[in-house]
Amino acid sequence: MIVLFTDYGWTDPYVGQLKAVLAREAPGVTVIDLLHDVPDFNAHAGAHLLDALAPEFAPGSVFLCIVDPGVGGPRGAVAIEADGRWFVGPDNGLLSVVAARAERVRRFRIAWQPPRLSDSFHGRDLFAPIAAWLAAGQPPAGRLQAIDALEVNFDAADLPRVIYVDHFGNCWTGLRGGLMAGEATLEVKGKTLAYRRVFSEAQKGEAFWYVNSVGLVEIAANRTSAAELQQVRVGDLVRIASDSGRAVH
Amino acid sequence: MIVLFTDYGWTDPYVGQLKAVLAREAPGVTVIDLLHDVPDFNAHAGAHLLDALAPEFAPGSVFLCIVDPGVGGPRGAVAIEADGRWFVGPDNGLLSVVAARAERVRRFRIAWQPPRLSDSFHGRDLFAPIAAWLAAGQPPAGRLQAIDALEVNFDAADLPRVIYVDHFGNCWTGLRGGLMAGEATLEVKGKTLAYRRVFSEAQKGEAFWYVNSVGLVEIAANRTSAAELQQVRVGDLVRIASDSGRAVH
Amino acid sequence: MIVLFTDYGWTDPYVGQLKAVLAREAPGVTVIDLLHDVPDFNAHAGAHLLDALAPEFAPGSVFLCIVDPGVGGPRGAVAIEADGRWFVGPDNGLLSVVAARAERVRRFRIAWQPPRLSDSFHGRDLFAPIAAWLAAGQPPAGRLQAIDALEVNFDAADLPRVIYVDHFGNCWTGLRGGLMAGEATLEVKGKTLAYRRVFSEAQKGEAFWYVNSVGLVEIAANRTSAAELQQVRVGDLVRIASDSGRAVH
Repeated sequence: MIVLFTDYGWTDPYVGQLKAVLAREAPGVTVIDLLHDVPDFNAHAGAHLLDALAPEFAPGSVFLCIVDPGVGGPRGAVAIEADGRWFVGPDNGLLSVVAARAERVRRFRIAWQPPRLSDSFHGRDLFAPIAAWLAAGQPPAGRLQAIDALEVNFDAADLPRVIYVDHFGNCWTGLRGGLMAGEATLEVKGKTLAYRRVFSEAQKGEAFWYVNSVGLVEIAANRTSAAELQQVRVGDLVRIASDSGRAVH
Repeated sequence: MIVLFTDYGWTDPYVGQLKAVLAREAPGVTVIDLLHDVPDFNAHAGAHLLDALAPEFAPGSVFLCIVDPGVGGPRGAVAIEADGRWFVGPDNGLLSVVAARAERVRRFRIAWQPPRLSDSFHGRDLFAPIAAWLAAGQPPAGRLQAIDALEVNFDAADLPRVIYVDHFGNCWTGLRGGLMAGEATLEVKGKTLAYRRVFSEAQKGEAFWYVNSVGLVEIAANRTSAAELQQVRVGDLVRIASDSGRAVH
Repeated sequence: MIVLFTDYGWTDPYVGQLKAVLAREAPGVTVIDLLHDVPDFNAHAGAHLLDALAPEFAPGSVFLCIVDPGVGGPRGAVAIEADGRWFVGPDNGLLSVVAARAERVRRFRIAWQPPRLSDSFHGRDLFAPIAAWLAAGQPPAGRLQAIDALEVNFDAADLPRVIYVDHFGNCWTGLRGGLMAGEATLEVKGKTLAYRRVFSEAQKGEAFWYVNSVGLVEIAANRTSAAELQQVRVGDLVRIASDSGRAVH
């Protein structure tokens, strides 16, 4: 299975162009569109989104990951195998959180130059063929060279920022909720939000925080947009505090 | 075949997460995205859209239907078989118009608790596996219990409101056009619109009503947005009247 | 393989309805969404986009092309085979640039009336079945009649206008870049833009032009929206000039 994770957007032809390559190089392999609206050019937010979403996909899945504002410049091209899943993309930090948190990880530099390499669309020309070959079970021998470390690394720690706003206006953060105490409050844009286990526990129109379905702390509101209500957008800082005001995170 | 009908939107990862489950539980089964922009939280509009669109899909198709603002609360989870098609979703009225209008219908309560059930994403954890098993021809024995009635029911009558606005600005209503006289006029927002059989019969920029390709009365305009022109949005009341002003519907 | 190229948008049910027909008439055939946001009603821009994108798809691919504001009126319905690829759609110019530029082309009128033909959705009722049969290798004998020419033709020359704005704000033009000199400048909306080979060669926030990954001249900006920066939209005229001000195109 090939899983697409990009900032190409749905409206443009870029995703279809990727799929033309995948159909040619890995015919019959299932392709799933996971996300094409990673915040534009934002490899840091993307890195945390990718780490949160990847575990839902079976081992053996190949993630084609493209958030690539430096395309055509000197940034490297890499593939990593992390806990049984493959990730292919630019070496700009996008794959680094998955790599940093995995129990077992192997890192490779893409040592292959396609016959046609456009200056602006390495997703189609470079990364898609590599992902296709991996998914088709044809290890691209000689095209991947083991390396010891990625060039650009975000660390494994949680990211205390908003990393995604969904179309309902729910705001995902880069904080993992597993260790959060339910009695804690969340601070964002100078305001404090209470914890609710689930949407229907909140009043209609009330903003709150909860642990979402991929395990991240999320700012939400019942039947309205938390992003509009709280004037929140990607990149805004968040802070978890106990009732006494002491930060617990 | 599994047909997706949700308010998850295209931009977010939720649809891809559904598809990861479907690929795992029903590998090789075709999945078609019918609509991911049911008006947010609006099970009533969704119920009428679903009934209008379903007949185009072959008997045996399984519709995975998710408009679920009450997720995590006390609302029930159901599956119905209506005229040979399956529909899986929350018991909040979304499936009730299909059920009320079908000639042959069986209703079931989902009597199964998945090993992991998030509080906010029953689409992924509860409804998708049930839909997958039905589509794969593996009836989930013991996981569906026959019931006599749904808990939440919208009636079988037409809904005289705008239920969907498409990206061209065409406004679908919940009125079925089969019985409409061509000489009738339609009233919306205090204005009266004439009937045109087809777009090219209207003047450029003229708003009109016609019977659309799924048999519903639709407010449209030739090469412009009827929604903007008439200031119409989902939920607005509509009324069909004869030339003499007598309501015919 | 069937490739979808429409102005139906992603949000609406129209694409899913097409796919229901394709799954029924050509089961198992891969369907790729190339573009559903051809500028609304704009067959001229669409014709140049289609010609630029088609070569990435393998010979034998069938393009289902629908930008059809004249649906239900007198416009014809056609299929063409151009350099080994099939294109099915309305005879409103949409297929004419591909036809005009192909080395080998055959033109056909669709001489078939489906049992149900809605007045407003020939994509579903007329064009999709024809495309499905072609893709499934079942030539629809008697349903295609050879003709000598299309009724509506845009010429084979480049189109010196913006034909598409992507979600990053990059503006595609209908000028093919193969013959452009790198030292040329591009004029749009009274302003002059320099050439950059690649995004990372431009300053952050700088607008420029380059030859994009499908070979078209494109107005772009580094990490911002060229469309907003230059106030450019689909239809705007562009002009390539040498440094001396002499037009080279």
